[in-house]
Amino acid sequence: MALIVQKYGGSSVADVEAMKRVAKRVVDTHNAGHQVVVVVSAMGDTTDELLDTAAELTANAPKREMDILLSAGERISMALLSMAVNELGVPATAYTGAQAGIHTDSHHGKAQIIGMVPERVARAIQGGEVAIVAGFQGASKDEDTTTLGRGGSDTTAVALAAALHADVCEIYTDVDGLFSADPRIVPKAHRLRTISQEETLELAAHGAKILHLRAVEFARRFNVPLHVRSSFSEKEGTWISNAPAHPDLAGLVPEAALATSKEETVEEPIISGIAHDRSQDKITVTNVPNTPGTAARVFEIAAEVGANVDMIVQNTPVDNPSLANISFTLPEADARRTLDALEARREELGFQELRYNPNIGKLSLVGAGMRTNPGVSAKLFGALSAAGINIDLISTSEIRISVVTDLEDLDRAVQAVHTAFGLDSTESEAVVYGGTGR
Amino acid sequence: MALIVQKYGGSSVADVEAMKRVAKRVVDTHNAGHQVVVVVSAMGDTTDELLDTAAELTANAPKREMDILLSAGERISMALLSMAVNELGVPATAYTGAQAGIHTDSHHGKAQIIGMVPERVARAIQGGEVAIVAGFQGASKDEDTTTLGRGGSDTTAVALAAALHADVCEIYTDVDGLFSADPRIVPKAHRLRTISQEETLELAAHGAKILHLRAVEFARRFNVPLHVRSSFSEKEGTWISNAPAHPDLAGLVPEAALATSKEETVEEPIISGIAHDRSQDKITVTNVPNTPGTAARVFEIAAEVGANVDMIVQNTPVDNPSLANISFTLPEADARRTLDALEARREELGFQELRYNPNIGKLSLVGAGMRTNPGVSAKLFGALSAAGINIDLISTSEIRISVVTDLEDLDRAVQAVHTAFGLDSTESEAVVYGGTGR
Repeated sequence: MALIVQKYGGSSVADVEAMKRVAKRVVDTHNAGHQVVVVVSAMGDTTDELLDTAAELTANAPKREMDILLSAGERISMALLSMAVNELGVPATAYTGAQAGIHTDSHHGKAQIIGMVPERVARAIQGGEVAIVAGFQGASKDEDTTTLGRGGSDTTAVALAAALHADVCEIYTDVDGLFSADPRIVPKAHRLRTISQEETLELAAHGAKILHLRAVEFARRFNVPLHVRSSFSEKEGTWISNAPAHPDLAGLVPEAALATSKEETVEEPIISGIAHDRSQDKITVTNVPNTPGTAARVFEIAAEVGANVDMIVQNTPVDNPSLANISFTLPEADARRTLDALEARREELGFQELRYNPNIGKLSLVGAGMRTNPGVSAKLFGALSAAGINIDLISTSEIRISVVTDLEDLDRAVQAVHTAFGLDSTESEAVVYGGTGR
Repeated sequence: MALIVQKYGGSSVADVEAMKRVAKRVVDTHNAGHQVVVVVSAMGDTTDELLDTAAELTANAPKREMDILLSAGERISMALLSMAVNELGVPATAYTGAQAGIHTDSHHGKAQIIGMVPERVARAIQGGEVAIVAGFQGASKDEDTTTLGRGGSDTTAVALAAALHADVCEIYTDVDGLFSADPRIVPKAHRLRTISQEETLELAAHGAKILHLRAVEFARRFNVPLHVRSSFSEKEGTWISNAPAHPDLAGLVPEAALATSKEETVEEPIISGIAHDRSQDKITVTNVPNTPGTAARVFEIAAEVGANVDMIVQNTPVDNPSLANISFTLPEADARRTLDALEARREELGFQELRYNPNIGKLSLVGAGMRTNPGVSAKLFGALSAAGINIDLISTSEIRISVVTDLEDLDRAVQAVHTAFGLDSTESEAVVYGGTGR
């Protein structure tokens, strides 16, 4: 018997038929002798519809009220799913975030989990019931409903799995797992059987939409094995774990898959996958006086308006070492107010010009293997060069290299790099690739 | 400054435009210097849609889960209304039933309020905010969401008004108040300016759908003045109070209305209104042995299956005093299982036949004036007789006479009695008459 947390996104419970399919899967898992905790998102487009209605009433909805509104979607789906599971003869009880003991701070709209006390959930599964928990929500110390922001349901699932010491947290979505690149861009992308938490974090942080960053961080911190898979098929998905052959997983992972995983791990591919991101913009501040602290001031101002600066490059014109150009990328949603804030400090900063380029794309190559393989950068730059693609900015971590290109070159860049690193599958897998909901 | 509780039913917040209209009225009341607590139902058909979805999944939804599901409708509407009020510049905060301190027992689907501790609501209005409370819901001691059953939002409003010692509880609906009869049946029905709580109770208990019985009982017990009015107009509605010139209401009731009310009270009409009810069925158990306790057994069996027996008549055939026929009415929803339960005890009860008549209608004449006016029954029977309508069963209280007729005669009966008691308005008021939602 294992303790399994299953998370179903909005597309997996989009309508009554989908809900029944999920209930069947939950019941099958229960009847196979496992303890099952289910985390469920709002049905299909519910959240967007609620947002639209709110937008018709006000452009400045109080965040506390917005959380009450949006959390209703998960309350509906958790109640319906509980009914559907009960209908199949397995006792199930639904719990709100508050009832599942998900304590958060009071930052409505993007609350952080500050404590997990899932007593009622634990009692339910010990009593042979399936526990169904509303994703995306918790409660503050004032007993107000809070929501966890984007990817909140993934975070709920992983946090519950950690608190309950679950053997695995299954993330059900509408794709078959993690791929070596977005199959919409690279039809020969292959599904990853296993990937480490660190690599997944880098992919998620740099544009891969399969799993939310925060959930992966949680999984790494509490060492929760994740299994990302499709709710529309019985296929194995992708195992995300630093210990793919974890003894607790015996019986959950088919022997064949484990064996293959181990073999693949031995082979140690240099690169696991390629993430891409179209949602970043670039700002360049030209001819800033090249004095200590000036670059720091630019990023202080960006931080004051809450801009999430990603890559930074500072260079000095050869002909005038007393000046500097500072370029950085940031989410497009942050660009306007950052430009305004910098413009308002033009005199203080003493720059000549603010340049704004919304047409950039970022490609990130991720792989634990690059730690020990010095040729990765050269191969990457060579592949891009051969495809005639200019590189603008570059940033690296221990297991990632990211480059910024023109937006219009991004797809070709991803394809060229995928091929150059030998990631192309011999047979194209027919997949649908989409977001994970929340 | 008065403390006003306003309750808006589902039809008053059916869409965004209606929601804005309600917000405007709330803000106007607040800006007139009053403290305002708003109780809101789910938008339009939300509840029915949720019920339909649940029905697609199961015919046996767990009641606890059904309460979670249905209560989501009020959470959505309270959040949206709070946004709409804030948008108009008045601070408002939304509270769930649990947050408003509405403590109930654990009878999911028809929970009883066992305690009211609306601390957060009181603090909000003392701080100059509008408090918006989800109708229809509370929380059990297990912190599970409960719903209060039919008319639950009315009950929430009256209970809050009682706990907060509100000066008035305004029940907004899609009609202009209480009428002397259903205007769809009697076009000449007139709006009542004032009516006592006892009379309202009798009308509500016997088919008038304007206000829920339980809410009126609460209002009587805690002496909460009710004002039933339309959210679609500024017109005065109907005041339900045993003390229509209550000093706390100064400024809330236009002088003219108060004066008129007093005059009308002096005039003391014998009859306030006529309720009708098509939802009852009749069961007759024939030739039961006429022994002590046999009738009691029949009603014990009905009680065991939860049937809500209303009117009862027992009579003995002239030619055989050792036998009795027992007839009773009950809600049509209770009929099938009551018939089954009686049939299963046929031998024990020793009856000859079970007769079932779903085609009956009940007319109830209500008026405090009949206490002191002995001619009411005679006038009622005379009017029905003149219209050629047979009376089947009769029951009375101190301020009510009810009669059962053939269903097909009911409308004519209501019209004839309305005219006979001089209730017809000289001018027809154009009204839409509907349910109150919940």
